[in-house]
Order: sequence, then structure tokens, then C-alpha cells
Amino acid sequence: MKTRISFEEMQETVCRAFIRAGMPEEKAATCARIHTESSRDGVYSHGLNRVERFVEYLEKGWVDPLGEPQLVAAMGSMEVYDGQLGPGILNAISCMNRATEIAAENGMGMVSLRNTTHWMRGGAYGWQAAEKGFISMCWTNTESCMPAWGGRSSAIGNNPFIIGIPRAAGHVVLDMAMSQYSYGKLQVTRLAGQKLPYPGGFDDDGQLTDDPGTIEATRRILPMGYWKGSGFAVMLDLLSALFSGGLTTAGVDRKNLGSCGSCCQVFIAIDPLKINDQAFVDNALSETIQQLRDSVPAAENGSINYPGERSIQTREENMRMGIPVDDGVWAKVKELAGI
Amino acid sequence: MKTRISFEEMQETVCRAFIRAGMPEEKAATCARIHTESSRDGVYSHGLNRVERFVEYLEKGWVDPLGEPQLVAAMGSMEVYDGQLGPGILNAISCMNRATEIAAENGMGMVSLRNTTHWMRGGAYGWQAAEKGFISMCWTNTESCMPAWGGRSSAIGNNPFIIGIPRAAGHVVLDMAMSQYSYGKLQVTRLAGQKLPYPGGFDDDGQLTDDPGTIEATRRILPMGYWKGSGFAVMLDLLSALFSGGLTTAGVDRKNLGSCGSCCQVFIAIDPLKINDQAFVDNALSETIQQLRDSVPAAENGSINYPGERSIQTREENMRMGIPVDDGVWAKVKELAGI
Repeated sequence: MKTRISFEEMQETVCRAFIRAGMPEEKAATCARIHTESSRDGVYSHGLNRVERFVEYLEKGWVDPLGEPQLVAAMGSMEVYDGQLGPGILNAISCMNRATEIAAENGMGMVSLRNTTHWMRGGAYGWQAAEKGFISMCWTNTESCMPAWGGRSSAIGNNPFIIGIPRAAGHVVLDMAMSQYSYGKLQVTRLAGQKLPYPGGFDDDGQLTDDPGTIEATRRILPMGYWKGSGFAVMLDLLSALFSGGLTTAGVDRKNLGSCGSCCQVFIAIDPLKINDQAFVDNALSETIQQLRDSVPAAENGSINYPGERSIQTREENMRMGIPVDDGVWAKVKELAGI
Repeated sequence: MKTRISFEEMQETVCRAFIRAGMPEEKAATCARIHTESSRDGVYSHGLNRVERFVEYLEKGWVDPLGEPQLVAAMGSMEVYDGQLGPGILNAISCMNRATEIAAENGMGMVSLRNTTHWMRGGAYGWQAAEKGFISMCWTNTESCMPAWGGRSSAIGNNPFIIGIPRAAGHVVLDMAMSQYSYGKLQVTRLAGQKLPYPGGFDDDGQLTDDPGTIEATRRILPMGYWKGSGFAVMLDLLSALFSGGLTTAGVDRKNLGSCGSCCQVFIAIDPLKINDQAFVDNALSETIQQLRDSVPAAENGSINYPGERSIQTREENMRMGIPVDDGVWAKVKELAGI
């Protein structure tokens, strides 16, 4: 039985921790909200569990609490910003917001951001755009943390890629990293004494394995779809750097400012109602979701979800019952908050 | 020992077949070039091997040989076209070309296309943009041909997604469908009496299998990365329809005009030199490819390729030695060409 904490208490506690670490109150509150929303939606690895490390990055000077995105270039529907190593969450919110502003005017907007820091849960910005009624795509590059297909040493980033589509009955949001499983998932599975549902990496002999501890030891996590996720990771990295004029994964590795320190991101927003009316959009969404629901389930009583549906279910449960926390993590965050 | 045919002979023969099927000479020549280039690059499934089916679609009236894209809407850097069920290759070339024209002016361009037909090899349009010096992303939706994750009946499209980046020493192009393996790969592997390198679908009991014939029988091909490729396919479908005002996979299913009849596509082009100078672009590409090459290979003497690298290798080999063909397929195309 895990402890459950209310959204408000978690947000307030995280906010205090960030203020104590040197962030101005408003910035701390926004970052605390995003961390708390991530835990609320079930993305624990990038929510409360990440607070301690973010504070550590502030202390090390890897994140500048006062850094804000500076416009570098603008043309047509594109803008490029330098994130000044400011808090990744704030930089990302600002850039996705700007992309939606451009889209509101021109139909679409693309904002690229260089020299930023870890944005935590990438899906946050897909949800953000959807809340404002915009379709979005965004991605980031990262330091190298995964072998490329055919290699055994780390060479590519586990770059997350997000697509969000607004929908009155629940936004449709895909938030996927390029590895089949995150290191967070490996850890949780190992601690529970379980195996992964499908192989998630390689053992020392180069054989695929579903044993999470083995993969944590070899660091040979598996790209999703084998060669496909590996190639996609390379492309997202190149696009991030080329659109923003920033660092590739290789460059981020050289900077060595922790996870994602000095990385680049791309935020694309599109106004669906510039192209279609609401009835068309509603119908496209509902018939697509209906086609999923009409599937014959693979397992008896199995369900087929649309992207983002489980996040919404977890969100409702966690808002009703409180957000589950690891007691040690929660104690540490309270300590950082001076409580 | 397979028969090998020169590029010129294949292109000329395919062109004659298309002219005999009712296409004007110039349109036939362009389509023949793309089919031949696909075979030349090793994408046999969508090259020569697809000629007979394309002719059949022309005969059935599922593809209008004279259909051309009509502008439906334009705003900012976005344009929307209706493909009039014209030849998918010609529509796609035209729209990617238009996207690069807009990008040349505004930095980026996005052209969406509805009511089009099968574009054959999606990568062709990534290579096309790269040849003109543009970064590109493009994708299509399709009829449903793959179970969604958690389902056993077909519900989602095997929608290909392409990213291309120009590079003097060889363009970097990712061309991936959402299934782990194509039906073409399953067939080739079965005919060779082999197993797939990794599981590629489910047997009747819902167990993953690497036996290609079993998967061809159940039609339960596996999305790449399990739930990830399934979710990505859903999003690409929705984006295709919402950006173009066209049909979703569910709508394409209802039309029932063969593979991809009345589908939608999206073409995005970006001019990398509007953001950076050539030296920056060259460096980003070369350091990223170098980081792949510096990997410790998983297998002794193994190599790590960047996306598109094997296509270039196959292209060089096939231009030197001739393009390998299946004798039965080649005989059939010659028959269609009246030779």
C-alpha cells in the first residue's frame, strides 16, 4: 500500500523545494505544477521522482534558474530561440506557447529551441497545446544513452517524440521515447521481482533479454522496433540541431551538463480549425477511436486504448485517491522543501 | 542466380506498360522512373513488383491517369490539395515539390494532400526533397491492415513515415512503416524457407512468432515497438486527415478502392540554410555519423549504418550489376508492355 498525496500538497511542497533552491516564486510554481501533473498522470519517473535531481542540477549550475529563451531568428512561420540553459520546463512551455501563437495567425508555427535543459515529461507540451485547441508535434534530443542498432556502446539519444491532438472528450496524445522501455521501467520491474513483458535489451552475450537487472547492468537498452527506433532517434537528433542551430547528441555529450543539458527541441503547432470545421475534426477523431474500440480484443475482456487514454484514466484515479508516492522520495522532497 | 536488368531497360519497359494502360507519355515516364528507382534502391516490393497491381488499379478506375492535384486552401506556409485520385506518385512529387518551393521562400512549407492514391515507396519523396537541398518529413495514411495493440483484428494503417536530410556525401533518409516487417518481407522470408530475425506477428493463439507463413495466415502483423508503433500509426492517420481535410483510415476502408485509394498525405519541407550556414549543417551531420561509426559493434566486424546508407550501397551495386528481378514478375511486366 503506497502513500497517496493530494495534488495540491504535492505541488505546494515541490514549489517550496524549488524556491529554496533559488528559483523565483512564479517560475518555481510553474515547474512544480508540471512535475506534479506528470506524477498525477502516472509519469512518475519525470514527476516527483525527478525533483531531487533537478534541484541538484540547479546547485551545480547546470540549469540557470533565471535563464529565459532569447529570440535568435524569425522567418515566416518559424522562430528560433536560445534557451540560455534556463529551466527546461519553462523554456518548453514558452516555446510551445509561441508556436501556438504563430499557428493562430498563420495556421502553423514552428519554434526551435537550442541550449536548453531537460524538459522532464515531453508529453506535457502536447497536452499544453491540446488544451489551447492546437495540434502539436514536439521532440527533443538528449545525451547519448542507447546503443545504435548494430552497436553495443551508447551512441544515440533516447529522444522522445510527442504528437497531440485536441479532443473535447479527452485529448489524443502520443508520448514515446525511442527505447522500448525507460530505465525507470527497468528499475520498477526489477524491484518488483518481475520480468519485462517483452525483451527490452541485451545481455553481455548480445542476446535479447527480458530481465531488467541484466539490461541495467549492460546498459544495452533496446530501441523500439530494433533498427527503426534507432534510425528514428538519429533523425530526431539531427532535426533538433539543424532546426535550432544547436548541439547534436554528440555535442551534448561533450558539454556533459547532466541529462539533456544544452540539448535542442522543436515545437510545431497547427490550428486544425484553419483547415476544417469542428464537425469534420470531431468526426475524424470519433470514427478513428470507434474503429479501435470495434477491434476484436487479443485477450478476453481486453481493451484497446487510443494514445493518451490511459493517462486520462490514471489522472482521474490519482485526482480522486491522491497521487501515489515512494515514501523515500516524498521524504526527500519534503526535506528539500524545508518541511 | 537472379536475372539482373539495367536501369534503362527496366524504366523503358515499365514506361511502355503504363502508356499501354492509358497514361500520357510524360506521366508514364515519371511513374516508371520512380518504380525503377525503388527497385534500384532495393525496395523491390514497391518497385517493379508493384507495376502489375498499379496497371490493374488503372483498369479498375481506382486511379485516374489524368487526375492532378487541385489547390483547395492556402494560408501562410500551408497549402491543401485534392489529388483527384490521380496517380499517387505524381501527386506526391507535385506536393513535395510545392512544399520545397514554399520552404525556399518562407523557410518551411507544409503541403497536405487528400483524395490521392498509393504513392508506392514513401522514401522517394524524402530523397526528392534532399536532392533539392531540403530537409523533409512526409507520411501517408492507408487502409487498415494491422491490428492495433491489444486487438487481433485489423484496425489501423501501416502508415509509412519518412524523414530526409540532404548531405553531399549521401543523403540521410529514414523510411519506415509502422509494422515491424512488411508483408513483402514475410513472403520473401517464407519463400526462402527462413525465419524472421525477430518475432514479426502473432500466431492463432496470440503468441509472438518468427514464422512468416504463420503471420501471413493470421494477418496479425506486429506494430514496431508493440504499443508504440500502434499509437504512432493512429496519430499519423489522424494528422493526415486533419491536415488535408481528407479521409481517415476508417474512411479509406469504406471507400474500398484498393490499397491507399483515397488516402491522405502530408509533405513538410524545411530549408536548412535559412537557419544555419553550410559548415554548421555539415558538421552536425558528420559528427553524428562519426558517433555511430565509433560505436563498438555488437557483432565482430559488424557495421553501424546511418538511415539511408544501405539504400545507397544497394543503389550503387544495382547500377553496376543491374537490378535483380523475379523472372515471373519481369515476364509479366514485359507482357504488359507488349514486348
